[in-house]
Amino acid sequence: MFLHRKVLIRPVNVGTPNARFGQFLLEQFGGATGELTAALQYWVQSFHVEDAGIRDMLQDIAIEEFSHLEMVGKLIAQHTSKLDQTDVYDAPLFKLKGMGPHFLDSQGSAWTAAYINEGGNVVRDLRANIAAEAGARQTYEALIKACDDEGTKETLTHLLTREITHARMFMKALDSMGKLDDPFFGNIPPDETVNLVFNLSHGEDVRGPWNEGPDFEYVNDPHPEGGMPPAPVNADDEHAPKAKRTKR
Amino acid sequence: MFLHRKVLIRPVNVGTPNARFGQFLLEQFGGATGELTAALQYWVQSFHVEDAGIRDMLQDIAIEEFSHLEMVGKLIAQHTSKLDQTDVYDAPLFKLKGMGPHFLDSQGSAWTAAYINEGGNVVRDLRANIAAEAGARQTYEALIKACDDEGTKETLTHLLTREITHARMFMKALDSMGKLDDPFFGNIPPDETVNLVFNLSHGEDVRGPWNEGPDFEYVNDPHPEGGMPPAPVNADDEHAPKAKRTKR
Amino acid sequence: MFLHRKVLIRPVNVGTPNARFGQFLLEQFGGATGELTAALQYWVQSFHVEDAGIRDMLQDIAIEEFSHLEMVGKLIAQHTSKLDQTDVYDAPLFKLKGMGPHFLDSQGSAWTAAYINEGGNVVRDLRANIAAEAGARQTYEALIKACDDEGTKETLTHLLTREITHARMFMKALDSMGKLDDPFFGNIPPDETVNLVFNLSHGEDVRGPWNEGPDFEYVNDPHPEGGMPPAPVNADDEHAPKAKRTKR
Amino acid sequence: MFLHRKVLIRPVNVGTPNARFGQFLLEQFGGATGELTAALQYWVQSFHVEDAGIRDMLQDIAIEEFSHLEMVGKLIAQHTSKLDQTDVYDAPLFKLKGMGPHFLDSQGSAWTAAYINEGGNVVRDLRANIAAEAGARQTYEALIKACDDEGTKETLTHLLTREITHARMFMKALDSMGKLDDPFFGNIPPDETVNLVFNLSHGEDVRGPWNEGPDFEYVNDPHPEGGMPPAPVNADDEHAPKAKRTKR
Amino acid sequence: MFLHRKVLIRPVNVGTPNARFGQFLLEQFGGATGELTAALQYWVQSFHVEDAGIRDMLQDIAIEEFSHLEMVGKLIAQHTSKLDQTDVYDAPLFKLKGMGPHFLDSQGSAWTAAYINEGGNVVRDLRANIAAEAGARQTYEALIKACDDEGTKETLTHLLTREITHARMFMKALDSMGKLDDPFFGNIPPDETVNLVFNLSHGEDVRGPWNEGPDFEYVNDPHPEGGMPPAPVNADDEHAPKAKRTKR
Amino acid sequence: MFLHRKVLIRPVNVGTPNARFGQFLLEQFGGATGELTAALQYWVQSFHVEDAGIRDMLQDIAIEEFSHLEMVGKLIAQHTSKLDQTDVYDAPLFKLKGMGPHFLDSQGSAWTAAYINEGGNVVRDLRANIAAEAGARQTYEALIKACDDEGTKETLTHLLTREITHARMFMKALDSMGKLDDPFFGNIPPDETVNLVFNLSHGEDVRGPWNEGPDFEYVNDPHPEGGMPPAPVNADDEHAPKAKRTKR
Repeated sequence: MFLHRKVLIRPVNVGTPNARFGQFLLEQFGGATGELTAALQYWVQSFHVEDAGIRDMLQDIAIEEFSHLEMVGKLIAQHTSKLDQTDVYDAPLFKLKGMGPHFLDSQGSAWTAAYINEGGNVVRDLRANIAAEAGARQTYEALIKACDDEGTKETLTHLLTREITHARMFMKALDSMGKLDDPFFGNIPPDETVNLVFNLSHGEDVRGPWNEGPDFEYVNDPHPEGGMPPAPVNADDEHAPKAKRTKR
Repeated sequence: MFLHRKVLIRPVNVGTPNARFGQFLLEQFGGATGELTAALQYWVQSFHVEDAGIRDMLQDIAIEEFSHLEMVGKLIAQHTSKLDQTDVYDAPLFKLKGMGPHFLDSQGSAWTAAYINEGGNVVRDLRANIAAEAGARQTYEALIKACDDEGTKETLTHLLTREITHARMFMKALDSMGKLDDPFFGNIPPDETVNLVFNLSHGEDVRGPWNEGPDFEYVNDPHPEGGMPPAPVNADDEHAPKAKRTKR
Repeated sequence: MFLHRKVLIRPVNVGTPNARFGQFLLEQFGGATGELTAALQYWVQSFHVEDAGIRDMLQDIAIEEFSHLEMVGKLIAQHTSKLDQTDVYDAPLFKLKGMGPHFLDSQGSAWTAAYINEGGNVVRDLRANIAAEAGARQTYEALIKACDDEGTKETLTHLLTREITHARMFMKALDSMGKLDDPFFGNIPPDETVNLVFNLSHGEDVRGPWNEGPDFEYVNDPHPEGGMPPAPVNADDEHAPKAKRTKR
Repeated sequence: MFLHRKVLIRPVNVGTPNARFGQFLLEQFGGATGELTAALQYWVQSFHVEDAGIRDMLQDIAIEEFSHLEMVGKLIAQHTSKLDQTDVYDAPLFKLKGMGPHFLDSQGSAWTAAYINEGGNVVRDLRANIAAEAGARQTYEALIKACDDEGTKETLTHLLTREITHARMFMKALDSMGKLDDPFFGNIPPDETVNLVFNLSHGEDVRGPWNEGPDFEYVNDPHPEGGMPPAPVNADDEHAPKAKRTKR
Repeated sequence: MFLHRKVLIRPVNVGTPNARFGQFLLEQFGGATGELTAALQYWVQSFHVEDAGIRDMLQDIAIEEFSHLEMVGKLIAQHTSKLDQTDVYDAPLFKLKGMGPHFLDSQGSAWTAAYINEGGNVVRDLRANIAAEAGARQTYEALIKACDDEGTKETLTHLLTREITHARMFMKALDSMGKLDDPFFGNIPPDETVNLVFNLSHGEDVRGPWNEGPDFEYVNDPHPEGGMPPAPVNADDEHAPKAKRTKR
Repeated sequence: MFLHRKVLIRPVNVGTPNARFGQFLLEQFGGATGELTAALQYWVQSFHVEDAGIRDMLQDIAIEEFSHLEMVGKLIAQHTSKLDQTDVYDAPLFKLKGMGPHFLDSQGSAWTAAYINEGGNVVRDLRANIAAEAGARQTYEALIKACDDEGTKETLTHLLTREITHARMFMKALDSMGKLDDPFFGNIPPDETVNLVFNLSHGEDVRGPWNEGPDFEYVNDPHPEGGMPPAPVNADDEHAPKAKRTKR
C-alpha cells in the first residue's frame, strides 16, 4: 500500500528558472536512466524475489526513487515556472505540451518500459540494478556539469549521492550471495569453452587481466568450428522466379 | 572493418524442427536480452572508450555476439524450415511474416535501441554489460528448460556458457580499475547522506549486510526534510474556470 | 514524499492459479488502460495544476492507483506462482521473462508514456482522466467476464468499482468549474463556424441531438471553401528527372 | 468508401514561411493530440459502435478530421516552402527528412497508435473523444500563442473552433444516453466502496465537491484492509544463492 | 478535402466468422505492410511532390488504400461479430480490447509511423512505394494461404490484385523518368568506386549479373584502405580509473 | 561467422569537429535510412533467401554496410571529440548521453526494427532493398548539402556512391528474374480488376503513362460496388444506454 505526504523528501530550491535546463532535467524524469526507470524496475522485482531481506531492500529503495522522481519533477516545475516570459524558440517542448514535468526524455521521446531490465532471478536483477544506478549517476554528473544554478546543483548532487548509496547496497547484497565477483549463477553447468577468449577483432591488440591467464585461455586466431548447414528451403518460394547465376 | 565467413563460429544442428519453439528463440534474436542488444551495446561503447585494452575487449566480444546472433538466426531458420507442414495456428508469426529470423522478440515486438545501456563513462558501460550478460544468461536458461531437442539444447548451452565467460571478462576489467566492489566513480564528491539507508517501506522489515553497519546508518522512520514549495503558477491557466472548494 | 506499507490496500486471494489468465491481467499492469497509466497521469498533472483542491484530489487518487497497481501485480504473482507446473506453450511470456508482473500488456508490448494524456490546462486534464477511467473500467469488465476464479473476480470488481468512484470525482470537479457540459475552455474565442455540423459521410444518415437544432446548424452537402494553393516547389527536386505527362 | 477533392475544406494562406514554426505544427499532424489521432480514433470506433446515429456522427467527424489533417499538412508545406533559403541549424528536421509534413511530432517522435483510446463500449469511446478534443484544443491554443503569422493564426483558430464543436457533439451524444454526468456504464454492479474517498496524500488537504457529502464518504486516514500474502515461491530460484540476512 | 460514402468500394462477405483469423487480418489493418501504411505514405508524399501528374496519382492511390483499409476493417468486424460465442483463449486480443479492428498488428503491436518511408525526392518516394506494395502483396498471399473462408479469400485476392496494379503504376511512373532501371538520381556525382563490388563474405561464393562485368568490377579480397584514427579522448573520462593492461 | 579488423574500410578524416553536425550524422547511424537499417535488413534476408547467389550478394553488401556503420560512427566520434569545449546548448544530446555515436536518429529517437522491410519472398526483399538504398542516398545528399567540412563531405560522398552501387546490384538481381519491370510475383493470380485505375481524388487531374492505355483502363468516376453490411452487433453493448435519435 502506497502513502504520500505533501512534502518533498528533501527540499528543492531553484534560484533562477531556466526552461532550457528544465528540458535537460527530463532525462531523469522520463528518460532511460531516470528515476521512473529505477523506481519501477526495483519495485516490479519485489514481486518475484523470494528472499524477504532482498525484497525489503528493493521496496525501500524503490520508494525512495519515487520520492526522487517527485524531486526531479519539482525541479522541472520550478525551472518552467516562468514559461510565460520565455521565448517559444527556447522552450518549445514546454510551450506546446505545458509547463512542468512530462514522461519524456530530454529529446522528447516518450518513456518506455523497454528501459527496464528484470526477471526470473535475483542475481540478474541485482546486476541490472547496479547498471541502472551507474547510468543514473552518469547522467546526474552530466547535468551538474551543465548547470549554473546553485540550488539545482545541490539537489542534483544529493540525487547523485543516493545512486552511489544504492549501488553500494546492491553490491553488498550480491556479495552476501557470493555473486559480486562470480559470473556463474543458476543451475545450468557451462560447457568446455568457458575459459576461452577469442581474438575476433584483429589489429593492435592490447591485452589485460580480462583475457589473460590463469583465468582465460586466449585464442589468437579462432577458426570456425561449424560447417554451413544446407540452404533453407522456403516452400513459399518454390514458384519464385529464379535468378540467373554463375557458380564459380 | 567487418568481414564474414560463410560458416558458423560453431555448428548448429536442430533435430526436430518446431516453429513454436522457433518463436521462443526470437527472444534472443530480436528481444531485449538477445544477441543483437549485446553486440550493438558493446560495439557502440568501443567508439568512446579511451582505454585501448578495454576497447579491444569490447570489440572482440561484440564480434563474437554478432556471430552468436548468426547462430540463433540459423537455429530459427532450421526450426521454421518445415513451415509448409505447420498449422497456421501454431506459427502465425512465421506464416504471416515469413520463415527464418526477424528482429522481433518472442511476443512479436520490434527490437528497439531503448534496450541498450551505454555512454559517457567506461565504468558505467562495463556495469551495463555485466547486467546485459546476466539477462542473456537468464533467458538462455529459460529456453533450455523449455526445449526438447538435443541439438538445440547443446547450442543454447554453449551460448549460455559464453555469456558467463563474457561476464567474467567484464568483471575482471572492472576489478582491474578497482571498480567491481566500489560504487563510486567519476569525479563528483557525494554529499553527507552517502551512508544513510531509509526504511520507507514499513512492515516486516528484514535486514542484512546491505543496510547494516558499519557501512550503513539505518534510518528507521525517515522524516521529510523539505517544505512544500509554493504552488506553481501556470500563466496559461489564469483564465481557467475556478473550482469551487472548501479549505479545511 | 512517498511511503509504503508492506500490506495491500485490500487483500487479494487467488483460488486457482492460471498463468494464461495472469497474462490477460498484464493489460491492467503494463497496458494502455492499466493502473500505471492512471497513476502516472494523475500524479504528473499534480505538478502543473494550480488549484490546491484539484491538486490534492489528483494526488489522493494517484496514490490509490499505485496501490491498485500493487494489487494487480500481486494477482499476477499469484496466478503465475505455479509456473513450474505450467506447460511452456500455455505461458511462454512468463516462462521466458520470469514469474510475476512485468510492464507489458497482455500482448507483450512494453508500456509507453504515449498512453498518457495531460498538460497545460486543468480542464483538459480532467477530461483526459474521465476517459482514462472509462478505458480502465471497460478492461476490468472484459477481465471479469473472462474470469473463472471467484477470488480474482472479487478483486477485479473492487478495482472496477473504484474507477467509477474516481470518474465521479473527476466529473464533480469539472462540474464545479462549469465545464462538465460546456465544451469551451481557455481564452481563445471560436470563429463563426462553431455551430456548424458537416455531413461528410454520405449514405443512410441518422441524426440526433448531437447534430440537430437549436445547438447545431446542419450542412447536408458541404462545399469546400478553399482553392488549392499552388504546388509546393521543392528546391531539392529541381534537378529531378521529370515525368512524362499529359494534361487533360 | 473514401473520396477526395483536390481543394481544401477551408483555404490556408501562410503569409511568411517559417520552418521553425512548421516544426511546431507537426504536433498537430503527427503528434499525440493531432488530427491523425482524432481521425483514426473516431473512424475505427465506427466499426464497432452499433447505434446507427452515433456511428454516422463518428464518421462525419472523422472525415472532417482527415480534411483538417490535410489543412495542417498544407500549412507545414507552406511554412517549409522556402527551405532552400533556411539555415540548416534552424530547420534540421526538414533539411534532413525533406520539406512538407511527416508523421512525426514537434520533437521528431514517430506517430504511434498508442495515442488512440477506443474499444468495446460506446460510452468509453465518447469519453475518450471528449478527452481527445480537449488535448487538440489545448495544443492549438499553444500554437496560436506562439504564432506571428496572421494567415496561420486564422487557420489555427478555425481548427480550434471545430474541436469545440466536436466536443459539444460528443457531449450531446453522451447526454442523450444519460452518461454525461453519470460515471456508471456497462452491466457490472459496483461493490460497497463506491462512495468512499481515501485521503492517501497527507498534508495541507483542501476539499471540494469531488470528495464531500452527500455523494462521497471521506476516509481521512485509510487503513490497509489486507494482510500480505505469503512470499511468492519462484521455482527457478530454488538453487539460487541465498543472501545472508538478519531477521529483526 | 475528404468525403466518404457509407458503402464499401467493393463488398465484403465473410461466410464463417473466425476471430482467430480476424487477428491475422490485423496485419493488414494496423501492421507494417498494411493499408494504413500505404494510404498515409502515398498521401503524405503528395504534399512535397512537385510534379502534378505524379501527385495526382499518389492521391488517387492513397484514397483507394483508405477504402481498402475500410474493407479490411469490415472483414475484421465480421470475423469478430460472434465474439460472445468465442472462447476467451481463442481470441484474447478482441475479448480484452473489444470486437472489430484496432490499429495493432497480428502480434498486438501498435502501428507506428516508423513503417513509413518517404521524403525529399520523388524517385525515392516511388521506390519506397514499390517496396510497400511488394510487402502488402506478400502478406495478402500469406493470409490467403491461411484462409478457409471463400468470401474472405475473394476479398483478399482483390486486395492483392490492386497492390499489383499500384506497383505497375509506380513502375510506369519511375520508367517515365528513366529511373526504373537507373540507380542514379539527385545531383551529387558518385566517386570513383561506383562500379566496384567487394567480396566481404567469404566461402562458397556464387556470382551473377549483380556482380559481374561489364557493369561491375569484382574485388575478391578487399583490403581496408584506411588507417585507424587515434583513439578518441573523452574529456569526461580523464579522472576515470585506469585499467591495468599489458601492451603486446 | 563475423570477423573484424581494427581499421576502417575507408579512412575518415574530419577537419573541424562540430558536435551539431555530429547530431545530424546520427540520422545515418541510428536513423530510419541509416546503415544499421541496411545492414540488418539485408543480413536477416540472407537467412530465408534460398538462391545461393542472391544470398551471397546480400551477405557481401550487409557486411559492407556494417563497415559503413563503423565509418559513420567514427565520423560522429570525431565530430564530438571536442565536446568539453562545446556549449551544452549546442550539443545537449552528446553532453547528456556522452560523446560518440548512439543508436538514435538526429531527433533523438531510438532505432527500431520497425524500419526494416523483409520477409517471405526474394522479390519483395529486393524491392525493399532498392527502397532502402534510395532513402539512404537521399539522406546522404541532405547531409552533404548541410556540411561545411571537406573531409566529412568526401566520406559522405563515398557512402552515397556505394548506395548507388548497391541499388544497381539489387536492380540487376531483380532484372535477372524478370522482376524489375513486372509487378507480378508469387503464385496467386490477380482478379479481373488488375488493369483498372480509379480516379478517386477529383479536381485538376493530370494523367500520364501510369494511368493511360494500353496498360490501364481509367475509371473517371468510380462507383462503389458494395452494399453496406448490416451494422455489427456487439454483444457486450446490449445493456448499453441507448442514444436518442431521429431517423431521417
